[in-house]
Amino acid sequence: MTIDVRETARLLQEHDRILVLTHKSPDGDTLGCACALCRALTAMGKTIRLENSDPIPAKFDYLLKTLPQPDFEPDYIVAVDIADTNLLGEKLSIYADKVDLCIDHHQSNHFYAKATLLEATAGAAAIPVYRVLNELGAEITPEIATDLYTGLSTDTGCFRYSNSDAEAYRIGADLIDAGADSADINVRMFETKPLAYFKLVSLVLANMRMFCDDHVCVFKITRDMLDEAGAKDEDCEPFAALSRQIEGVKCGISMREKADGNYKFSLRTHAPLDASKIAATLGGGGHQRAAGCDAKGDEEESLQLLIKTAADMLGCGIE
Amino acid sequence: MTIDVRETARLLQEHDRILVLTHKSPDGDTLGCACALCRALTAMGKTIRLENSDPIPAKFDYLLKTLPQPDFEPDYIVAVDIADTNLLGEKLSIYADKVDLCIDHHQSNHFYAKATLLEATAGAAAIPVYRVLNELGAEITPEIATDLYTGLSTDTGCFRYSNSDAEAYRIGADLIDAGADSADINVRMFETKPLAYFKLVSLVLANMRMFCDDHVCVFKITRDMLDEAGAKDEDCEPFAALSRQIEGVKCGISMREKADGNYKFSLRTHAPLDASKIAATLGGGGHQRAAGCDAKGDEEESLQLLIKTAADMLGCGIE
Repeated sequence: MTIDVRETARLLQEHDRILVLTHKSPDGDTLGCACALCRALTAMGKTIRLENSDPIPAKFDYLLKTLPQPDFEPDYIVAVDIADTNLLGEKLSIYADKVDLCIDHHQSNHFYAKATLLEATAGAAAIPVYRVLNELGAEITPEIATDLYTGLSTDTGCFRYSNSDAEAYRIGADLIDAGADSADINVRMFETKPLAYFKLVSLVLANMRMFCDDHVCVFKITRDMLDEAGAKDEDCEPFAALSRQIEGVKCGISMREKADGNYKFSLRTHAPLDASKIAATLGGGGHQRAAGCDAKGDEEESLQLLIKTAADMLGCGIE
Repeated sequence: MTIDVRETARLLQEHDRILVLTHKSPDGDTLGCACALCRALTAMGKTIRLENSDPIPAKFDYLLKTLPQPDFEPDYIVAVDIADTNLLGEKLSIYADKVDLCIDHHQSNHFYAKATLLEATAGAAAIPVYRVLNELGAEITPEIATDLYTGLSTDTGCFRYSNSDAEAYRIGADLIDAGADSADINVRMFETKPLAYFKLVSLVLANMRMFCDDHVCVFKITRDMLDEAGAKDEDCEPFAALSRQIEGVKCGISMREKADGNYKFSLRTHAPLDASKIAATLGGGGHQRAAGCDAKGDEEESLQLLIKTAADMLGCGIE
């Protein structure tokens, strides 16, 4: 059953012992929404805590450290920013058929909850959560504004992407007025990377290769490079996005040597190239503009297969 | 004389042959403001064009290509986003003592114009320009919204920095409603860079230096590096922001060799360091978190002065 903001507020008002579920590999939106709900409903006298299947990255400590996390037996289960139950992760999978309320913004929501508030055009789940808190008459404290701004900013690439409409900007303004330190949050979320990452960038870019008249860019990250830079596997994450930012590049390929010596490919494309079709060459998959696959055997031979597929799609030679 | 928005509108209304000056090394804010003024005042029947001392980077073609640029003898000179006459650049320096009106947002404005509209807390000069256009009753067309959003977004790092207050977000929302394609603009401004830029990143990062217990980071960009990468001066711009993104860095310094062999410093700081005070060491200026100055004599000696000033503010040694 899909419900509106008013009905969502009513359901939350009716319950007193609430568990809020966040999705696996938690991000700023799922955590920001959950923290905001926990803080607002605690202030209304309810008992509430959030749970997650995975460890929460340290960069979100500023949200979690002031959050009361009481121990109790819940009588109402709420999921935030979770489109499907397979995103609950292993630990929370026991709740898959027990979710009472879901607040989400994914068009792909599977309506697994008894009641779902879905705002599919919202840039972040933080937007419907903000509306629900307003409907509840909750005071948007600086902490809650910080939670929600974190969700809004991280899911819209700091208001950069097409999912950030005028309404997202206006709610961003409201949250700043309510006490969110936007600059501080954005520095934490977007502007801070370890020195080792920058060393790795230098090494990787020094070895980048271009194919198909510079329409295909390849970044290769070896364990030797990681060691030389003192970098971790998580420092490799931004290279996928970087590979597509080069002017004229239609397909960015970043390949990364895992600890076991095998390689993993991340593909990013611009229209009209379909990244998931290129990844399918090696049995991988994903979305139109972002996909991935594992190397089969020799990583350079696997790379040649991907480049050939992209070249065929682009109607150009490999060199 | 400082004037308000209403008086600024009145002065523009009184004149019919207007020249708009943009600052040297033109950026999105100075160009966005100038284009918006040109379009809005042309629609009001005035004759107006913009001028610049330096070539305008190709990435701003989407602003300039639809701009009427008539040839005429001006009777009123307006400067936008220009804090001091030395920022006019060589070609426009002939106007240094002839500027009738300046619309700006730099705290460091030198009040060289006969009348100055200064909104020193605004994240971009596009904000006072937007207010003036509203005061004039100008229609904010999609083209004008695109001009102003470009200024607002580029000067606030896409609403990421502390200079982006709630008002900046609300004006961003208004401009999107008026037809600015924010996602398209932000891809152009932030997400697409030439291949030569990435080659330059590799060279610059390979030579980065850290001082003051890694609180101060220095990027040095030489003409040799630009030549090796095939990069242009405008490709140096993103390094200022990058220099502050390294974990633990409080002051990022990027120094760039100009075509004449002299060096220019760009400073970026995190609180509590005041970038404009560090830049003042060498006679420069700017904002609290972003400032600039030119080297005096040997660039490495100038650099040492800047590092020493930052070290003193941080209360730490230089090494």
